[in-house]
Amino acid sequence: MMKQTHFPHNPELNRALLAVSDLMAARIKTKDGQLESALQKMATNGGKFLRPAFFWLFASLTGQPQPEQRDRLIKLATSIEVLHMATLIHDDIIDDSPERRGRISIQAEFGKDVAVYSGDYLFTIFFDLITTTTATTPFLTTNAQIMHRILSGELGQMADRFKQDQTFLSYLRNINGKTAALFSLAASEGAYFGGADQRTVALAKRIGQNVGIAFQILDDILDYSSGDQLNKPVLEDLATGVYSLPLLLAMQANSAAFKPLLDKGRLMSEADMQLVRQLVLENGGVEQARQLATAFTKKAKAEINQLPAGSSRRALTKLCQRLLKRSS
Amino acid sequence: MMKQTHFPHNPELNRALLAVSDLMAARIKTKDGQLESALQKMATNGGKFLRPAFFWLFASLTGQPQPEQRDRLIKLATSIEVLHMATLIHDDIIDDSPERRGRISIQAEFGKDVAVYSGDYLFTIFFDLITTTTATTPFLTTNAQIMHRILSGELGQMADRFKQDQTFLSYLRNINGKTAALFSLAASEGAYFGGADQRTVALAKRIGQNVGIAFQILDDILDYSSGDQLNKPVLEDLATGVYSLPLLLAMQANSAAFKPLLDKGRLMSEADMQLVRQLVLENGGVEQARQLATAFTKKAKAEINQLPAGSSRRALTKLCQRLLKRSS
Repeated sequence: MMKQTHFPHNPELNRALLAVSDLMAARIKTKDGQLESALQKMATNGGKFLRPAFFWLFASLTGQPQPEQRDRLIKLATSIEVLHMATLIHDDIIDDSPERRGRISIQAEFGKDVAVYSGDYLFTIFFDLITTTTATTPFLTTNAQIMHRILSGELGQMADRFKQDQTFLSYLRNINGKTAALFSLAASEGAYFGGADQRTVALAKRIGQNVGIAFQILDDILDYSSGDQLNKPVLEDLATGVYSLPLLLAMQANSAAFKPLLDKGRLMSEADMQLVRQLVLENGGVEQARQLATAFTKKAKAEINQLPAGSSRRALTKLCQRLLKRSS
Repeated sequence: MMKQTHFPHNPELNRALLAVSDLMAARIKTKDGQLESALQKMATNGGKFLRPAFFWLFASLTGQPQPEQRDRLIKLATSIEVLHMATLIHDDIIDDSPERRGRISIQAEFGKDVAVYSGDYLFTIFFDLITTTTATTPFLTTNAQIMHRILSGELGQMADRFKQDQTFLSYLRNINGKTAALFSLAASEGAYFGGADQRTVALAKRIGQNVGIAFQILDDILDYSSGDQLNKPVLEDLATGVYSLPLLLAMQANSAAFKPLLDKGRLMSEADMQLVRQLVLENGGVEQARQLATAFTKKAKAEINQLPAGSSRRALTKLCQRLLKRSS
């Protein structure tokens, strides 16, 4: 059961997210009692359910879903969160993250072995939810493509690790895959199965992409900005050689300053990394990255205003404000 | 390109496997040149292509596939090998295997990070191949279920690690999931898409299951038998706490002898493990396991004889003989 109510002013949305939470709990059944309970906890009261919420609001653009549509929509909303969870679990293996969603990560608690298979296991739940809901629709192929793009983005990011000459375009392509693709899927799939017209589905897809890119840039900014509003260890990306937008922008302004530090690669000390962070701030990397995030946010807002007017559009505007305010 | 010709007396089958190999090569495209080439190598000349061969023979039971069917059958045969490869790559992370198919494993060459995402990436290729071929057939759901069962088997095996009181049934359930499910899928999917009748598809499913279980038991026997016919490090399973059938059977005969050694868990030395192996042999564990494998093999053979007679049935009999002779 989901303990928190994330959208106190939207009882319809809350009810839907509760159903998503229940369905996840029902699907996660493993032979290992401890693992099952860790996955259950992660599924039911750790996450913010942003992506299913996003999906649901797009599905409700032209009014609350009909009862006979509800079951399928809940399954689809769940599939999106399950796919997200699977990738989180695998990401934590890569990052050796001790924490996830404020509690110990699956890999820290059960080891990388269990984490690998747990992520895979969630992929199978995703696959199952999709096949039973989208089989006769274009979204079966779309889901396969999106999963492919997420992994291509992850692999692209890995291929670019420790590369000082990577381009913005390469960075944007990678985050478009690893983050924006899923937001884009949530939005367009929601619109489609909620009964929106073709134009609105296409618009939803673009909104998801722009929101996703802004969201990831803001997440990457957190690595360099002060404070610890999130549970994410500061400079985690830098330690693993992932050079995100603030650094890439600052390097463009003054690559000579960064070179001696970045040339150390995996041997960078904590002090070196703090120095890099300082240099990123001094050279305007965070500021410029924030400007770019703002550009994507503005684009998304303008597009949201083209959606059918109503309570869902208003809720969507609010959700995006919340999503895209994380670090400002 | 596949370098080896595995079935010199069956040009049709060889041609099909070559097409499978080519399709895999075409689908595996990553931003990381080195990784791509490692995956390509693994895909194209490392494997024995047993599962696609199995699929193809079942698809040809009533004659060679029609040209217009061929494309779909090649995609399906490829999907099976891709799913197999994905699970192999993730298995190697768990086992910390330095080798796979006689060459260095993805995780040994690129690290566990790349291995996690490479396996996931192959899952997306699998997903894509399946959605474009089975969307309007019962095999879309079947594929989702099989993938689910494979992971349930892997997780079940992990949950049973270091458990001295696990049952044969639990062992059989786990290998049924992690190994036999895929053989069963290959057989029944082949029969279905090759145009066989319902009875034959059901028979194929049972044949695949029995062959798969026998295959896995024989594989597990290799851990305890002498020599190194395979590239698999001897006693690998034991070191990671996976108690397979020969050990379970020997423990039933003389659990007191094993207890002091197995109680050491992860602290067992190489010498301890050699002692366990000796005890397994002395207490008839290998012999009894081989008898059980023989029972499954006989069952499979009897069932194969119920298939439509012809060159594919003959080839299938030969393939199973080869499959199930690995350690005898």
